[in-house]
Amino acid sequence: MKNFKMLIAYDGTRYKGWQNQKSTDATIQGKIESVLGKAAGHPIDVIGSGRTDAGVHAKGQVANFYIEDTFTAETLLEYLNTYLPEDIAVLSVEEVEERFHSRYHAVEKTYQYRIHTGKIPNVFERKYLYTYTENLQIDKMKKAALNMIGTMDFTSFCGNKKMKKSAVRSVYEITIEKKEQELIITYRGNGFLQNMVRIMTGTLLEVGQGKKKPEDIADILAAKNREKAGYTVPPQGLTLLEVKY
Amino acid sequence: MKNFKMLIAYDGTRYKGWQNQKSTDATIQGKIESVLGKAAGHPIDVIGSGRTDAGVHAKGQVANFYIEDTFTAETLLEYLNTYLPEDIAVLSVEEVEERFHSRYHAVEKTYQYRIHTGKIPNVFERKYLYTYTENLQIDKMKKAALNMIGTMDFTSFCGNKKMKKSAVRSVYEITIEKKEQELIITYRGNGFLQNMVRIMTGTLLEVGQGKKKPEDIADILAAKNREKAGYTVPPQGLTLLEVKY
Repeated sequence: MKNFKMLIAYDGTRYKGWQNQKSTDATIQGKIESVLGKAAGHPIDVIGSGRTDAGVHAKGQVANFYIEDTFTAETLLEYLNTYLPEDIAVLSVEEVEERFHSRYHAVEKTYQYRIHTGKIPNVFERKYLYTYTENLQIDKMKKAALNMIGTMDFTSFCGNKKMKKSAVRSVYEITIEKKEQELIITYRGNGFLQNMVRIMTGTLLEVGQGKKKPEDIADILAAKNREKAGYTVPPQGLTLLEVKY
Repeated sequence: MKNFKMLIAYDGTRYKGWQNQKSTDATIQGKIESVLGKAAGHPIDVIGSGRTDAGVHAKGQVANFYIEDTFTAETLLEYLNTYLPEDIAVLSVEEVEERFHSRYHAVEKTYQYRIHTGKIPNVFERKYLYTYTENLQIDKMKKAALNMIGTMDFTSFCGNKKMKKSAVRSVYEITIEKKEQELIITYRGNGFLQNMVRIMTGTLLEVGQGKKKPEDIADILAAKNREKAGYTVPPQGLTLLEVKY
């Protein structure tokens, strides 16, 4: 058997996320497994670097899978892009060493959240944007973002209340850029909890609007209580940009 | 009454074009007239610079309409963007002189046709691209495009066989640019017949593939026969970029 690593882009609009515990039919992982299963003639397990929520997009999701030696990276790339739906694309396929694991070996992830702040809608990119037209104090958002950087327990920013494993994660960098009619927030860290980027974004927006202060972030983190953080922004503004190994 | 000029952007994917003779419900003009009619309390006619086909997009369609003096450009802009569906945006509204007419006074239009030539699908822009992965001889397409420039009878490039008016149009410029995985063809002229840009693009693709020669264009034009030109490429790659007055 060979182990292949894939780089995947998807428009998550119509999917229940990368992976869904009940049904795989409406998931990105499920669609890829279905195409590979037909190629192989038997079920293939696709291991993603991590889940993305329903409606979240990716420009650089990584996954790996094992398949018979007769397959090459080139034929798999062509086969996948021929049979996958038009909102999922495999950008590259490469053979990797047998023990490579997309989830266990990931060391860094970058997510981007795009907020449309203008009053004129962007009709062409609307499915990849969250519209938020209230006035925002961006300098305060930047201060608050600095307080979210470090290796800390992010329980207050975790959407899964039944989480039993460690909620300690390292956030390396958060950048906030104003670009024409958009505010783009980019998060780089060793990993993110369920909904974590969306809750961090909602909290930063509340700071920008004056509902919370940059200094509140330390208390929110210390509380280890989801109720203390801001709201969860909708999924469509979020894109997984890159996974590093 | 005041006369207002609007600049409009739309994702044409789910519409039957700018204007439809039978029903206005699924047209862009119809959607705008419906919102303005509610604002005014009586029907408002919106005059577009020209029709765009079903599935064609616009980043700079122009239209004008007459409405009571109580309305201002600012309130109309906000009202329209609040009530129009998310795939139609009004980019600007300005009051213009009473006799300004979007169609009669248009002197130049620019259309762009985007062809995705790569083997890796572009999942985020897929609704604005026509995928064509055959090898293309771009130098030959550029030569053929030069033969389409000038003031000529474009009957062979007209999709309306019952056309009774003059088919003479002036094409000022056609540029063909290769940009990463895309081939972008931009057409500038004083006006275009029904399907004309799409038939020109199909003809250029047939030249690029070697099915037609750059020298054939003169014969195709002289024949004044739609059957002599190439096929009509699908609408989703086409965008009306600009209308000049």
